[in-house]
Amino acid sequence: MPAGALTVIPIHDLPMVQPGDDLVVLVTSAMDKAGLSFEEDDVLVLAQKIISKSEDCFASLNDMEPSAQAIEIAKETGKDPDFVELVLRQSNDVVRTGPNVLIVEALTGIVMANAGIDRSNIDRGDDDDIALLLPINSDASARKLRDEFNEQSGKTIAVIIADSVGRAWRYGTSAMAIGCAGIEPLDDQRGDVDMFGHTLEVTEIALADQVSSAANLVMGEATEGIPAAIVRGLKFPRSDRPSSVLIRKKEEDLFR
Amino acid sequence: MPAGALTVIPIHDLPMVQPGDDLVVLVTSAMDKAGLSFEEDDVLVLAQKIISKSEDCFASLNDMEPSAQAIEIAKETGKDPDFVELVLRQSNDVVRTGPNVLIVEALTGIVMANAGIDRSNIDRGDDDDIALLLPINSDASARKLRDEFNEQSGKTIAVIIADSVGRAWRYGTSAMAIGCAGIEPLDDQRGDVDMFGHTLEVTEIALADQVSSAANLVMGEATEGIPAAIVRGLKFPRSDRPSSVLIRKKEEDLFR
Repeated sequence: MPAGALTVIPIHDLPMVQPGDDLVVLVTSAMDKAGLSFEEDDVLVLAQKIISKSEDCFASLNDMEPSAQAIEIAKETGKDPDFVELVLRQSNDVVRTGPNVLIVEALTGIVMANAGIDRSNIDRGDDDDIALLLPINSDASARKLRDEFNEQSGKTIAVIIADSVGRAWRYGTSAMAIGCAGIEPLDDQRGDVDMFGHTLEVTEIALADQVSSAANLVMGEATEGIPAAIVRGLKFPRSDRPSSVLIRKKEEDLFR
Repeated sequence: MPAGALTVIPIHDLPMVQPGDDLVVLVTSAMDKAGLSFEEDDVLVLAQKIISKSEDCFASLNDMEPSAQAIEIAKETGKDPDFVELVLRQSNDVVRTGPNVLIVEALTGIVMANAGIDRSNIDRGDDDDIALLLPINSDASARKLRDEFNEQSGKTIAVIIADSVGRAWRYGTSAMAIGCAGIEPLDDQRGDVDMFGHTLEVTEIALADQVSSAANLVMGEATEGIPAAIVRGLKFPRSDRPSSVLIRKKEEDLFR
């Protein structure tokens, strides 16, 4: 490996995750089969969907009774009223609506489309109205998993839970951290000096989001279905701050 | 290397780039010294600042005569009127202003703070009022460099020019592609099916932005000053589309 290089390693052959599954067992077993083991300061990136599935964060659209607000938004967006009702229940606030667009502040405070509710990559079985919600507290989930992986492996690793989201001014989704443990999410380099000794004007780096994006490059959205990857060789500040420090405070947000 | 892994390789020891420098020569020479050579389908990510420097995209704040609009915005933002004037000259439109905040649509169409004008990592010499502008057409710059690197190396590589930008709802900067050649910037997986045979609802991936973020992890903002990295082992669609396809059309943008 060239000096300073990092490697992004997909973890293949994880089974379909079911409610109650122990992700530490599943990931460790898949790594074993691939001849992989953790190294010090590995960052394990896990897709939101397997956290949600293991934590049984499912809801059925059949259980919804759309409110007047949901019905109105459904008309405006062209979305199913039951789905809109579910999104509203998973949100603090509606940020924007438009044709096929429903952007909200999800319960966790993150601004995203449809409160991060996903209907892809779900084994719907007999119920075609099943939807997968975000974990209730992804930072807590990341901390718990990090502690268990550390104990199990004897190494100090970091864990990021990543989701793919849209952005205001650009097309396409990009992965970001919705949960974080053991890595500084927001690397504050303000006050550092540049190569010429001038103080950097604005440099807080969304480190955990960028690590999520790097991992996403090997994870895939469609049939590949690789919901876990290791980012190895990254130099990063260890930290106990949650990913929620990445969320811009509403009162500082000019785009709400 | 585990199956499907990718590596992100920093290119160390590039000299300070000066106007007129040939980046193909500089990068190739630095790679030679490090024992690196291109492999098929490598993605070379270059920091905006070395493109701008080589293309002599400098301006001096001393040359500015602030307009009434610039003076007003300077008051509101607390920024220097000469700097605001320069930003306005490099912009199509002002999107938001606030204390210490000036978000514009830059000439290239990208929504970003201060039109991407940077005053860090510039050898200001005797003139402390020098600022570095974005390249005039980063997609064209990427294409030209890609062609030259391909000819020089005999391999088919892709080139991305990356800049670090802020986001609407999250703190911290994240790298994105402002120029692109040879890699599909916006990977459209709509119409693909998920693991259970359901059609993916919304999946266009901002591939070039995510590759930029991955590269940024080894590049650093402060004294490290590593303005080039290779992303190797990525599976990606080759494409001739420019990075500008990532820019959300103004009429489809709910946050303008």
